Amino acid sequence: MSRHRVEVLIRPRPGLLDPEGKAIHHALASLGFQGVEEVRGGKSVSLEVEAKDPAEARERAEEMCRKLLANPVMEDYEIQMAGDDVPEGA
Amino acid sequence: MSRHRVEVLIRPRPGLLDPEGKAIHHALASLGFQGVEEVRGGKSVSLEVEAKDPAEARERAEEMCRKLLANPVMEDYEIQMAGDDVPEGA
Repeated sequence: MSRHRVEVLIRPRPGLLDPEGKAIHHALASLGFQGVEEVRGGKSVSLEVEAKDPAEARERAEEMCRKLLANPVMEDYEIQMAGDDVPEGA
Repeated sequence: MSRHRVEVLIRPRPGLLDPEGKAIHHALASLGFQGVEEVRGGKSVSLEVEAKDPAEARERAEEMCRKLLANPVMEDYEIQMAGDDVPEGA
């Protein structure tokens, strides 16, 4: 067993209202940041998970998301582990 | 100019109180998740930034962090772009 660092990103599902993202977007525009689009607010949780390998750590983190960290009606989650490539889309 | 997806993670600085992380840690333990450590709560902001290349998009996102998204006294930020490797530490 070893410890694996896992980063969980939790965002409102596409199509749902995202008042935090909207507020950030407006604030950026009023500070003069032009050309910024698709601003979305979210949460992150980072944790270290004991597991025999990264695949098991990811599976445990998925279970934590389903049971506690994310609300499946309102939110999507993404699990990142050290060494992963950051994905293209959100 | 093209659009670049940027993901910003904002976390309480190491050593500062993190009541959200603590609450999540306790909730995970009470759901039976053992062997989870270093739980830290945070925010994420994803955005699409117009820039001539990824380096410029990252620079603009850094400036947004310094001016609006993160509180430098209390928070650290990390900027991820599509195709980056997820770093080892937090």
